Amino acid sequence: MTTPRKNFIGINLSGSYIRAALVTEDGRVIERRSADVSSENIVPQLATIVDDLRPALGTVVALGVAIPGLVNRQTDRVVDSRNLPLKMVEDLHGGLSRATGLRVELENDANAAAYGEFQVGAGRGSTNLFYITIGNGIGGAIILDGRLWTGASGFAGEVGHITIDTEGLPCVCGNTGCLETVASAPSIVRRARERLNRDSTSSLSRLSFNKNFTAEDVAHEAREGDDFAAMMIERTGKYIGTGVASVINLLNIERIVLGGGVMDAGPVILNPIIQEVKRRAFQPCFEATQIVIATLGLDAAPVGVALLARDAEVS
Amino acid sequence: MTTPRKNFIGINLSGSYIRAALVTEDGRVIERRSADVSSENIVPQLATIVDDLRPALGTVVALGVAIPGLVNRQTDRVVDSRNLPLKMVEDLHGGLSRATGLRVELENDANAAAYGEFQVGAGRGSTNLFYITIGNGIGGAIILDGRLWTGASGFAGEVGHITIDTEGLPCVCGNTGCLETVASAPSIVRRARERLNRDSTSSLSRLSFNKNFTAEDVAHEAREGDDFAAMMIERTGKYIGTGVASVINLLNIERIVLGGGVMDAGPVILNPIIQEVKRRAFQPCFEATQIVIATLGLDAAPVGVALLARDAEVS
Repeated sequence: MTTPRKNFIGINLSGSYIRAALVTEDGRVIERRSADVSSENIVPQLATIVDDLRPALGTVVALGVAIPGLVNRQTDRVVDSRNLPLKMVEDLHGGLSRATGLRVELENDANAAAYGEFQVGAGRGSTNLFYITIGNGIGGAIILDGRLWTGASGFAGEVGHITIDTEGLPCVCGNTGCLETVASAPSIVRRARERLNRDSTSSLSRLSFNKNFTAEDVAHEAREGDDFAAMMIERTGKYIGTGVASVINLLNIERIVLGGGVMDAGPVILNPIIQEVKRRAFQPCFEATQIVIATLGLDAAPVGVALLARDAEVS
Repeated sequence: MTTPRKNFIGINLSGSYIRAALVTEDGRVIERRSADVSSENIVPQLATIVDDLRPALGTVVALGVAIPGLVNRQTDRVVDSRNLPLKMVEDLHGGLSRATGLRVELENDANAAAYGEFQVGAGRGSTNLFYITIGNGIGGAIILDGRLWTGASGFAGEVGHITIDTEGLPCVCGNTGCLETVASAPSIVRRARERLNRDSTSSLSRLSFNKNFTAEDVAHEAREGDDFAAMMIERTGKYIGTGVASVINLLNIERIVLGGGVMDAGPVILNPIIQEVKRRAFQPCFEATQIVIATLGLDAAPVGVALLARDAEVS
């Protein structure tokens, strides 16, 4: 008889979807489930997914849930929620503990994804890491000496809201000239549209034929060799590189892991990012840093939060 | 008979001067010495100062030396030096150990000053702190969970070289639009001069009568109520506040301690800094942070490095 394997379940709960994974002790995904958030009564829905994922052999030791919000570590209650009503998630910890009988760990989704990449993704082998996710918004998380560093009140890592242009555009956060105002997916579309409107006869791009193009379309066209799209993505890379250079000069961090939909563009965006960081950062800081694209994709948060549940100090 | 008191000696070695202090175990300064750097043979000069500071009663347990450079922790050798020839300081550790018979700890000067403020100055009572010194340049240092966080290669904290304006002025570091290009002491003078040249008949300021004014003069006039000087200092405060807001959004740090000559202006610069941080930073990050002026002045580095010598793990 062999010792039953220890497994963990990780769930990423966003505003509209649920992604869950059964994860081994060393971070391999055995099975995945995904679903739309079906009702406001989220605990029974998640408990059903957990039941469905429990393996026939082996044991599930703990459950991690990544949420788009913030957890109070004293009370284990969710105290801030961005894309889900707070009422719906505030007692996730209590509800899921009772419904599943498992030890439950909650974590912010960007922190969870960072931990996933750190443990088994593009951050593997590093000790200190800054994770940046570039999609509809720009978020981030910091790992120092192998542990999440979340700051005085849990908000550390908001790299999307560092000012890179004092006189720049207004941001949703209330500031002006945030990195997010020029480098998020919607801002790529906005900049491309503005440019096409100014120069409506440009033969540079096929994009102008499709009025409802997305940042993904721009990235796709850039990869396919469209000059206009490539220029837009390159400019985005320069903005991101400006932000990354500031992170590197402030933290002298060992590795920068870049994730999120915008980074699916690959080398066409990574190269201008690295060039801009090289141009702007202190040389010894630049030389001490590896700048890489995240590798776990949509597994990052569920795997990360499963491994955070694995590594939580059990009191 | 009482137990002899344990004391520590801290020395701040800059490019041109030496400031030394005999410091008690709890960070009080008993005596101070200062001198110009007299020759390239620095070890005997420092050893004489150490001898001079050794108390008649009590013992000196260890010696800390703050340097404008970087120390390799494996070899205890100085590997980078900004204002002193590397040859002059690289074996300070070995030389001073032999010459004084004391255990010697070396530390970068900004890190030492941050640790001094953290232990017995404006950072007292905090756990996480970002120290910013604004003078001829803008430097910084980070304390997380009570310990210096110096990064992958010892360069963390370079807040003077985060980009706050992508299209800004060239900086000595090679970047453009660094905080240092608009908020250091020389940049205050440059901006004031440019403005006076553009508007040479302005009756706003008495500064225009003195062709060789310094940033200190501008700060002094601002405190005295001169409108033009106040505007210049207020603008400087806004730039610094922009940088501080980025630090706060990235690190969600508990306390910001602002030191260096420019901060001698007092509330006339602190208030616009705080206003700008409030305007730019996330509200929960702003609310979690105290922004204060350093209190130790020129004692910060010698006291800090003495206390680092106190707290070093003796192997």
